[in-house]
Amino acid sequence: MLLKSISRVIKRNLSSVRIVEVGPRDGLQNEPKVLPASIKIELINRLSKTGLKSIEATSFVSAKWVPQMGDNTEVLRGIEKVEGVSYPVLTPNLKGFEAALEAGAKEVAVFGAASESFTKKNVNCSIKESIERFESVLKAAQNNKVKVRGYVSTVIGCPYEGKIKPSAVAMVSEKLLALGCYEISLGDTIGVGTPGTFKEMLNEVLKVDSVDKFAVHCHDTYGQALPNILTSLEFGISVVDASVSGLGGCPYARGASGNAATEDVIYMLNGCGVETGINLDLLIDAGKYICEELGRPSESKVNRATRKIQPKL
Amino acid sequence: MLLKSISRVIKRNLSSVRIVEVGPRDGLQNEPKVLPASIKIELINRLSKTGLKSIEATSFVSAKWVPQMGDNTEVLRGIEKVEGVSYPVLTPNLKGFEAALEAGAKEVAVFGAASESFTKKNVNCSIKESIERFESVLKAAQNNKVKVRGYVSTVIGCPYEGKIKPSAVAMVSEKLLALGCYEISLGDTIGVGTPGTFKEMLNEVLKVDSVDKFAVHCHDTYGQALPNILTSLEFGISVVDASVSGLGGCPYARGASGNAATEDVIYMLNGCGVETGINLDLLIDAGKYICEELGRPSESKVNRATRKIQPKL
Repeated sequence: MLLKSISRVIKRNLSSVRIVEVGPRDGLQNEPKVLPASIKIELINRLSKTGLKSIEATSFVSAKWVPQMGDNTEVLRGIEKVEGVSYPVLTPNLKGFEAALEAGAKEVAVFGAASESFTKKNVNCSIKESIERFESVLKAAQNNKVKVRGYVSTVIGCPYEGKIKPSAVAMVSEKLLALGCYEISLGDTIGVGTPGTFKEMLNEVLKVDSVDKFAVHCHDTYGQALPNILTSLEFGISVVDASVSGLGGCPYARGASGNAATEDVIYMLNGCGVETGINLDLLIDAGKYICEELGRPSESKVNRATRKIQPKL
Repeated sequence: MLLKSISRVIKRNLSSVRIVEVGPRDGLQNEPKVLPASIKIELINRLSKTGLKSIEATSFVSAKWVPQMGDNTEVLRGIEKVEGVSYPVLTPNLKGFEAALEAGAKEVAVFGAASESFTKKNVNCSIKESIERFESVLKAAQNNKVKVRGYVSTVIGCPYEGKIKPSAVAMVSEKLLALGCYEISLGDTIGVGTPGTFKEMLNEVLKVDSVDKFAVHCHDTYGQALPNILTSLEFGISVVDASVSGLGGCPYARGASGNAATEDVIYMLNGCGVETGINLDLLIDAGKYICEELGRPSESKVNRATRKIQPKL
């Protein structure tokens, strides 16, 4: 039942939220159109001016598997690093970590999943083995004073095995924290969650560690990203991943599963009196810029609603 | 602050929600393409089979002002009336009420606004005068055992005067209830609300009468419809207006302000364990049908995500 857990909700006067902008990585990685590095750099530079404090810049995976991120070094080296802004990059293994370090990364992210089938399909091993593989990355990161963020994907549902047990999410989170991740981003990768299933999941996960160790990463496949984020905020979660203009989900395609649009998240938070330090107008401009380059409409309703104000679109 | 009011929230174990489907009226009235009565009738007949208990069928306003609803009598007479389903129609004045009665209406709705400027612009009088005009409708309805629902529009913001005071919403709601409306639907007509502003508004309005007298009607202009509905549910509101496939908002047009898409609302409620009695698959089919007729994509993310399952689209 919807409100069964509300009395158990950690009640906080949440006054500020940190947004982790994942558009340049999780977003662009899933767009059908591959953009040149210069445009990615321009996007990140524009995002850096909005007040965002975390912008995931690229991914150091094999270009064979993810051609969209083949220009990772060029992008990471090419962006203007604004003081106070972190530019984490994804590093699936030690090879990726070393390349990221070489390119100047100060923060990286590793990614596990809460689904055995998903892990098997993606990295051909068990969850346990997949996490053991991160040990070398975490050690190398520690030696180089590089912060490591952990992703847990498929925290609600998996395309191969359906519903995921909250206890599996808690277990993977615990292992990643134990390895030394400073924060765990809980990803509803296929966007099937609702406030009901998010509450079940968070009730279990928050037994593992304090709420300030967790972020949420909500895809909007079924339109539930904002209510799921709101539910997470009510649990005291204060770090939210989002993607400018909902990058990553091709409009009107099956499985369209972009992230929560950053503009819409900021609009919601502004209306709730929660500080983010982000200038919504500049963010909308950055969204319009990248959508124009991709040749597709914004998946942010806030961005669309302000459309005519911008003469260039 | 977001959670300041959470401790004041009326905590209920909400087990069921009634959906008022407003697509055939509020939706189609705002679509650029005008459909023939036969298609509207087919849409309503399909909706009647989904388990919906309230389907707003049409509007008895002047065809001069709202040509989309010029076929009101034909539509209301043409639909198959399923037992247990109510088919309310809008009646702005006694003339409209009499025509609706003649066409077989058993439930009607009157609509006020919480904004003086909006009222002045729309019906050229004050809020007070606009409500006095409903007295004759309410009396005639009572004499004919016709139920009357009251709408209050612009409950959060107004396109002419900006932010609306919660006390104005409470005042208009109180007057409509005093006139004999059995329920008040609180409409965020331009979709500018957020959970923060909804909480402020509901805190004030729920001083007027008990929560079971109120429904919410959220437009999705800024992507906030679902979080606003979720917030309202947390206040104990258990009647939600929605529009199949988010009808009423032209995709990618400025001020695109369709209602919350019924499919997405049902998906959220299902995931929260809240009963609605509605078959989501049949609802998705109805949404696909009407979007095909309108020649535009669905504004429901749930509907889009299930797109390929349906061979006809």
